[in-house]
Amino acid sequence: MTDHEDFFAGRTVLITGGLGFIGSNLARRLADLGAAVTVVDSLIPEYGGNPFNLSGYGNRIRVNIADVRDEYSMNYLVRGQDFLFNLAGQVSHLDSMYNPYTDLEINCRSQLSILEACRKHNPDVRIVYSGTRQIYGVPQYLPVDESHRVDPVDVNGVNKVAGEWYHLVYQRAYGLRTTSLRLTNTYGPRMRVKDARQTFLGIWLRRVIEDGEVLVYGDGEQRRDLTYVDDVVEALLGVATCDGAVGEIYNLGGDEVVSLRELAMQLVHLSGSGTYRLVPFPVEQKAIDIGDYYGDYSKINGALGWRPAIGLTEGLTRTLEYFRAHRDEYW
Amino acid sequence: MTDHEDFFAGRTVLITGGLGFIGSNLARRLADLGAAVTVVDSLIPEYGGNPFNLSGYGNRIRVNIADVRDEYSMNYLVRGQDFLFNLAGQVSHLDSMYNPYTDLEINCRSQLSILEACRKHNPDVRIVYSGTRQIYGVPQYLPVDESHRVDPVDVNGVNKVAGEWYHLVYQRAYGLRTTSLRLTNTYGPRMRVKDARQTFLGIWLRRVIEDGEVLVYGDGEQRRDLTYVDDVVEALLGVATCDGAVGEIYNLGGDEVVSLRELAMQLVHLSGSGTYRLVPFPVEQKAIDIGDYYGDYSKINGALGWRPAIGLTEGLTRTLEYFRAHRDEYW
Repeated sequence: MTDHEDFFAGRTVLITGGLGFIGSNLARRLADLGAAVTVVDSLIPEYGGNPFNLSGYGNRIRVNIADVRDEYSMNYLVRGQDFLFNLAGQVSHLDSMYNPYTDLEINCRSQLSILEACRKHNPDVRIVYSGTRQIYGVPQYLPVDESHRVDPVDVNGVNKVAGEWYHLVYQRAYGLRTTSLRLTNTYGPRMRVKDARQTFLGIWLRRVIEDGEVLVYGDGEQRRDLTYVDDVVEALLGVATCDGAVGEIYNLGGDEVVSLRELAMQLVHLSGSGTYRLVPFPVEQKAIDIGDYYGDYSKINGALGWRPAIGLTEGLTRTLEYFRAHRDEYW
Repeated sequence: MTDHEDFFAGRTVLITGGLGFIGSNLARRLADLGAAVTVVDSLIPEYGGNPFNLSGYGNRIRVNIADVRDEYSMNYLVRGQDFLFNLAGQVSHLDSMYNPYTDLEINCRSQLSILEACRKHNPDVRIVYSGTRQIYGVPQYLPVDESHRVDPVDVNGVNKVAGEWYHLVYQRAYGLRTTSLRLTNTYGPRMRVKDARQTFLGIWLRRVIEDGEVLVYGDGEQRRDLTYVDDVVEALLGVATCDGAVGEIYNLGGDEVVSLRELAMQLVHLSGSGTYRLVPFPVEQKAIDIGDYYGDYSKINGALGWRPAIGLTEGLTRTLEYFRAHRDEYW
């Protein structure tokens, strides 16, 4: 991996969705590396933004509250930036089915407005987009690599495909320097735990800390890989520093594949509190469930040497500690 | 193929984009088969709608001018329909790069508003969507079948993918009875010939009829297949009558693959007027050019027996005749 210490010191960086889970962890890391960081966030209540996520960095990170759908704000904010990490988005699968228009606005229109702003006002900025493994839909084979068929099962998945592909179109047609990372289930400090909007794991963490009950859908045998947020941050920084990554798409993935039942069991064990129970799939969840998923990350490993550094036990332990210490800010 | 005569007599049919090229040809055919046809069209000037396209059918086809982005209109119009042919769209690749937001509205938001209207007010309607071969981008192999990678090269292509995939998502999640046909270059009477927005062939037809000059980009060796509009109409009717086609995607394709230079030469020959000339690619066209394309239509041939019935010479001859007779309505 590149030596991030040297690379980002003194660089200007814009992070959309920067008060959210991954954005805030990235912003803190970049500030520690000496970058001049601006975060943009709309703080829409159902999304992941939380001002507490940047606590302790108030005088080192500039926070700009704005809606990324607004090209006028973006026209101003992108100017002079060396890097743009484009992490803003609506991530709830179910919300996208209840309100497909809002999902379209956030995941498609906003991406166009950001790319148009860059094309017109900062065509040299290095752009990294956070895509999602969700666009593969039901895996045809495992682990899923980047050439797997794209076949989303919900409106959010369709719109996230479009958001990613605009980045590729603007790269080919206009030479913008874009890369997409397709994230799998990311977890760690500063994730949304109010509900299951960001991932099922958020609400699970909250339930076990409250000594409550985790509900696992179906037989709990659906298998997943998870990435600890610090590993995602390293991948984001890594592709941003790599010229060969321009125009490319990379999967992230985890080394430990677990069933949801095993994961619930481990979480209860590590927390020393809470229980879990298998319950039938709710109808609207079943309609968009994809079964087993885990990703092949050999492409980014080959290009950057990236691999997950934080194992599941370590990552869950750190995450539980964080939310026990700061539950008032997240509940 | 199903006996359309029996099937559509007395059925109610809604056609979005029904004053446009393919929509109007379909509407006329369905009216001839005894269906009760309503067409919806926004008549946006840059698009393909032209009231003359339904000339002679004024008392047999109901015309409703409305914007398909407006869910309120659609909520009303979809009620009581047995069939919905969803053909409305913005088709210009270059316009989508100049104004990506409008393309998003027309090709994504409108599809959501149509599907939401159907889900809420007519979940049993049989829906056929007109997709495009353009979403494959630069072919990895030829002929291109439905399992070819989807990799659009422009904003219009990305949005057309999203529009198609919403139809698949609503089929899986809500049981709506949707099918997508991925059309290749369609030509014939009632196409837009004012400019190259619908296809390059429109402006070529106009130029040769005017005894003018057709401009062929590059070396003219890019190969394409073309489908005469009557064959597209038969395919639309065929999938609509086939229960096995629900949730499926089918390519159309042509038996005669021609280079653009050969096509220009043939057009000049058949018309007995006009000339053609090779010119360098305009920069913004080159950025989104896809090279050779022709499609594999064996899937729809296997399912429905569909194959193109009208050869290129016959189709071009009929088309030239039509526009010579009606140029005042189209120029």
